[in-house]
Amino acid sequence: MQIDPWSSNKLEKYAHIFKEFGLNEFKFEFNHYLFSRGIVVAERDFKKIYSAINNKKTFLQLTGIASSGNLHLGHKLDVDFFLFFRNLGAKSLFVVSDIDAYLSRPDSKINNLNKAKEFAVENIADLLALGLKPEEIYVQSNKSNDYYSFAFSISKKITESMFQAIYGHINPAKMSAVLLQLADILHVQKLFGAYPTLTGIGLEQDPHARLTRDVARHLKGFETPSFFYFKHQSGLKQDSKMSSSNPDTAIFLNDSPSTVKKKISRSFTGGRDTVEEQKRLGGNPDVCKVFEIFKFHHPDNEFVKDIDSKCRAGKLMCGECKKLCVDFLNDFLKSHQEKHKEFLPLAKSIVFKKPY
Amino acid sequence: MQIDPWSSNKLEKYAHIFKEFGLNEFKFEFNHYLFSRGIVVAERDFKKIYSAINNKKTFLQLTGIASSGNLHLGHKLDVDFFLFFRNLGAKSLFVVSDIDAYLSRPDSKINNLNKAKEFAVENIADLLALGLKPEEIYVQSNKSNDYYSFAFSISKKITESMFQAIYGHINPAKMSAVLLQLADILHVQKLFGAYPTLTGIGLEQDPHARLTRDVARHLKGFETPSFFYFKHQSGLKQDSKMSSSNPDTAIFLNDSPSTVKKKISRSFTGGRDTVEEQKRLGGNPDVCKVFEIFKFHHPDNEFVKDIDSKCRAGKLMCGECKKLCVDFLNDFLKSHQEKHKEFLPLAKSIVFKKPY
Repeated sequence: MQIDPWSSNKLEKYAHIFKEFGLNEFKFEFNHYLFSRGIVVAERDFKKIYSAINNKKTFLQLTGIASSGNLHLGHKLDVDFFLFFRNLGAKSLFVVSDIDAYLSRPDSKINNLNKAKEFAVENIADLLALGLKPEEIYVQSNKSNDYYSFAFSISKKITESMFQAIYGHINPAKMSAVLLQLADILHVQKLFGAYPTLTGIGLEQDPHARLTRDVARHLKGFETPSFFYFKHQSGLKQDSKMSSSNPDTAIFLNDSPSTVKKKISRSFTGGRDTVEEQKRLGGNPDVCKVFEIFKFHHPDNEFVKDIDSKCRAGKLMCGECKKLCVDFLNDFLKSHQEKHKEFLPLAKSIVFKKPY
Repeated sequence: MQIDPWSSNKLEKYAHIFKEFGLNEFKFEFNHYLFSRGIVVAERDFKKIYSAINNKKTFLQLTGIASSGNLHLGHKLDVDFFLFFRNLGAKSLFVVSDIDAYLSRPDSKINNLNKAKEFAVENIADLLALGLKPEEIYVQSNKSNDYYSFAFSISKKITESMFQAIYGHINPAKMSAVLLQLADILHVQKLFGAYPTLTGIGLEQDPHARLTRDVARHLKGFETPSFFYFKHQSGLKQDSKMSSSNPDTAIFLNDSPSTVKKKISRSFTGGRDTVEEQKRLGGNPDVCKVFEIFKFHHPDNEFVKDIDSKCRAGKLMCGECKKLCVDFLNDFLKSHQEKHKEFLPLAKSIVFKKPY
């Protein structure tokens, strides 16, 4: 039996979730590493999007991040998906959710909206450096008044019991954040027209997706939005998430070369206890955080398959592999950070100047 | 014992409410009929405002109405108070709450935000006709983005239990409406600075006042707002409220002369069963809806006292008194409606053009 480096036996874990929540396994094919490596796992109503793409019809895309800290490789994945569908022709907007970030994080982390706006400037400079166009980006705090009226109006279509059923509780800040999230996804249809609309999210965000679809059905003149669900890149430590709250678990887009080197050298790998053992038995890329970086971010399928095979065959030791990873990341980050710096003034204007 | 036409024995009814909710009886004096006729009944922290007025210090005012229908004499009372404090030097804003109107009314009455905006145009033309300046008026749907960010941000300062305690339930539309109401009152301090801020409301609105004061204390850099509480003008029928939902209970600012005549002729009065009896025993202005119109709206104290005395003495019959009232109202409404028409284009621009 040949082992496919893109297969994900973890997918089986999700089977019962899919069934329970009415998600479909993602079975559409695209000739791109983001879709051939088992990163995308499920969808709701993606067929509408697929059909629009294949028939060159209009479709829309809304993706976003909360500006609650510096961006790491996990966020880059959102951006990569965004760019993929934008390049396929989606009329696209990327929201940097500063109000949501302020509302959803404890005061100990973000104690006023300005703090979230400062992060938004940094984040947007990253987005521009990654290839987004300025007109594709907005912050929640700097929209037209029509957007806000719409966000508040949405609340009339959500009953207390809908909210309770989905979130289990109903605190005011949570509710505000939810209204904004729904407004972001649905408002693109007010701007561009009632076309199929795609948003890529993690599975844990599905409650938002369901509520958004529910509300869209209750509003007049909206196409029910489609969603695809991707796996989050895990953290550099064993059993960790890539998280802004724990810097050692993540490679940030503003990490220095030495920080990257240090973090990668300390990452959890699929290596054996000794070099001798690893040469004899091979390593295990399936659990390796270094391999996961290649899997999620390295565009060259042959390169990644080669790493996988050599590791399993005991021909590539962790030290050498880590060096390849450090070089890959630092090459990318060097160029990225230069662009980031150049884009800071433009990013500031997106956050603070009149919406355009 | 001389009967003071301005005394209000109804005030005693409120005593236990004042005590229970921590309201103060309104004991400040102003040389104006709105304050000498027992219409204003209670206050919270009004001493700050009184002191600002007497020491010629800056103070602010925010008053508002929901644009859920045409305005009637009950709304004119809000405007009269607004003009009184504005003329005393308050930096003042008057909000026409169109989003709130949409959120708080059933779809059968207001089924989309545009309907509330259409009412807002009519309402604002009324406000301008009553003497407000265009720069003193805004609609919730047409504010700067800073206002909306602030409204959403407020939700982080309200816990689920605060909301439950005050409103008893926590449905999403209600919560949105509350956020906007709080934002309206507090945002004037973001525009003009942290000065004492006054809002006049009916007693039934006190939950909002308490929550607003609570939130102001939790935000940094805000002066806790002050409130005064006035009695609502009652409806033209016995035991009725002046209500947009029941047109026969109210004189609307757009009522025609014949409609006013008809409504006043059918009003509940303090008259006796027969003219003879009334001449002998006198009428009772305390329960008379026609007298209440004079009490709430006629600026001439001598005129109103004269009506009161003659009625009690059996020297003024209801028919004649109603004629005086019809003439008073129709004189006012004729001039008002002419101005209203002239102000419609300006009102439209306040609702639909860029906020200024």
